[in-house]
Amino acid sequence: MKTIGILGGGQLGKMTCHAAADWHWPVHILDKSRDFPAAPYATHFVEGDFRRSEDVLAFGRSVDVLTIEIESVNTEALHQLVAEGKEVYPQPHVIDLIKDKGTQKEFLAKHELATSPFELCDQSRLISLQEKLRDFDLLETSPPAEVQEKVANGEWTFPFVQKARTGGYDGRGVHIVRSEKDLENLLPGPCLIEKMADIDKELAVVVARDANGQIRAFPCVEMVFHPTANLLEYQLCPARINGDTQDRATDLAIRTAEAFGIVGLLAVELFLNKDGSIWVNEVAPRPHNSGHHTIEACVTSQYQQLLRILTGLPMGDTDMRHPSAMANVLGAEGHTGPTHYDGLDGVMGSPAVFMHLYGKTTTKPFRKMGHLTALGDTLEQAEERVKAARDSLRVITR
Amino acid sequence: MKTIGILGGGQLGKMTCHAAADWHWPVHILDKSRDFPAAPYATHFVEGDFRRSEDVLAFGRSVDVLTIEIESVNTEALHQLVAEGKEVYPQPHVIDLIKDKGTQKEFLAKHELATSPFELCDQSRLISLQEKLRDFDLLETSPPAEVQEKVANGEWTFPFVQKARTGGYDGRGVHIVRSEKDLENLLPGPCLIEKMADIDKELAVVVARDANGQIRAFPCVEMVFHPTANLLEYQLCPARINGDTQDRATDLAIRTAEAFGIVGLLAVELFLNKDGSIWVNEVAPRPHNSGHHTIEACVTSQYQQLLRILTGLPMGDTDMRHPSAMANVLGAEGHTGPTHYDGLDGVMGSPAVFMHLYGKTTTKPFRKMGHLTALGDTLEQAEERVKAARDSLRVITR
Repeated sequence: MKTIGILGGGQLGKMTCHAAADWHWPVHILDKSRDFPAAPYATHFVEGDFRRSEDVLAFGRSVDVLTIEIESVNTEALHQLVAEGKEVYPQPHVIDLIKDKGTQKEFLAKHELATSPFELCDQSRLISLQEKLRDFDLLETSPPAEVQEKVANGEWTFPFVQKARTGGYDGRGVHIVRSEKDLENLLPGPCLIEKMADIDKELAVVVARDANGQIRAFPCVEMVFHPTANLLEYQLCPARINGDTQDRATDLAIRTAEAFGIVGLLAVELFLNKDGSIWVNEVAPRPHNSGHHTIEACVTSQYQQLLRILTGLPMGDTDMRHPSAMANVLGAEGHTGPTHYDGLDGVMGSPAVFMHLYGKTTTKPFRKMGHLTALGDTLEQAEERVKAARDSLRVITR
Repeated sequence: MKTIGILGGGQLGKMTCHAAADWHWPVHILDKSRDFPAAPYATHFVEGDFRRSEDVLAFGRSVDVLTIEIESVNTEALHQLVAEGKEVYPQPHVIDLIKDKGTQKEFLAKHELATSPFELCDQSRLISLQEKLRDFDLLETSPPAEVQEKVANGEWTFPFVQKARTGGYDGRGVHIVRSEKDLENLLPGPCLIEKMADIDKELAVVVARDANGQIRAFPCVEMVFHPTANLLEYQLCPARINGDTQDRATDLAIRTAEAFGIVGLLAVELFLNKDGSIWVNEVAPRPHNSGHHTIEACVTSQYQQLLRILTGLPMGDTDMRHPSAMANVLGAEGHTGPTHYDGLDGVMGSPAVFMHLYGKTTTKPFRKMGHLTALGDTLEQAEERVKAARDSLRVITR
């Protein structure tokens, strides 16, 4: 059995280990602390930093095939491992393209994959100055200043979205600019600005592509956001869209995975605009929050699908088994410290609710601490169930 | 979170750890070797012998609630732990009653739970002699001699079944006596003999009972045996029986669990006789082979149900999600040594087949090395799928 190595020991790594446990397949994890979610379930846990070249090289050389559960890994080391003959999926150049939202957007545009109109800010100047000076303090204009300038001269009008090119996740690194006031707290650093979509629904499709170029897409999901907070309320599968929209969403996601030539999983977040057009919002080259429900709701989970790709086994059927609704379990507001779960009885008393806790030892407001997947005979039933279960569980400190 | 301790680190312990991983719930395992199936997935593994009083006492004192995955544990230590205030489920006196097939049968008969007519061989003499002499060598007649005598004097006629009172599992410890010839190789040691059922089908119902006396039964399964070898071919859920039979089987299983007053799982193996009557064959106070399919085929798995009982959480819905067929993966004949799986591609290429490998490092003929659960839109489809998958997988040595 090929030993699988995963860079990152968070919940996505944990759930991949969990899928591998069915097969008793060896999975090694590299991350900073044995307190992290994946540690108890990896067959071997290596303490180290996936951002450090030496750590990634040593770890990569100790396994047969390497993957990631987070994009912010040291890809230089991954390129070197590929040069040494190691199998690394997704491929390092794909991770590079995607982890920088600027190059990701340029890639989408270049391949005529529908996405919102955008512009990179300060990219050219930054790069040329960096090359010449190697000293950021000498930069005369910052990317935010460039954004402000573009608004001042009428190139961009409100509302639009500013995104940090790197380091953003879970809503971080995204800033919505609706007015002059929002120009005052622009994100620092290299960024892109993009036209705000006129959103009817947010959708997502996780696509799996193996080393032979075979593709399997998971059913399209609908993400329902809180009306005021920029937070996922819950996620529904199947999405409440017609067959044509579903086909177009799936087709766009598949074409995106094919364009990248990714081997592994590509989670494609989509905007369904009010005019019926669909845009790629952004992509992630790994298991994704929008695929959590696949554990119970689909024949093959996204985690097992990734394992099948990594081990060279045939991909599995992605059909939906039951309608489902998935809600993240977030740390309660006002609570930062050692984790305590309040209301487990209520969750476990809800019919057909599957609780996943990630074992994070400390909680903080809105931190992802787990998720709940509810199944139903109908989507409405699943939705009611997940809402009831979510409302009965609170992650607090005592 | 209450720390759960399990005596035994085989596949049943492994799958219980696996269920607990969803909740990130701490599970400690006591067994002899870190090579055993549960070891990589327990949050803590203690090397020791669950047959040794000191080991069980030390382990039991280190956890909050204790359970078993095998009956042959040191129950004296468990009684002592209960006396010290430890929660032990199933209760030690229930394990005692069940682990001796003689007292188990007597219990069934005493509680008017239908079972085959039987007789214990040499029990009275054994016990009285043991009390007096503490020396087995002084026993004048062995239980097998007593069996032979009962046949000679016409008390018992062929065919009948001889069962060792302790230590039997997976078909071991059961001897079918069809003729004089079979009398020559009777099992040694204390035994019981029972009337052979006139079997139409073999059924099983796993019953869960919590500390409040609440009961949830899993759907009745049908076990299909190989026509010549005494081996489970595969197992089907739902069983191919009518509603009345199903109700009577479930009712008998529930009454059995209630009679024992067990807290935990009771797997009740049943004979459906050709005259329509149902007998309890035997029971096991733990997760059971006949509940493997519940992982994918039911809303709550038998493993998660046990965890809910151990942690005091409400029991879950046991409804069937899809028809299923389950086949054990057995070591191939003629192969003893380091395990190698041949034909994984075939298994993973079968639609809706879920592979479970237990990670046993050495294989031998007919050893349980894993199991396969297939789901189908119909039972027939599930059956075809599991047969195809099973036939493509071989556990061999290279």
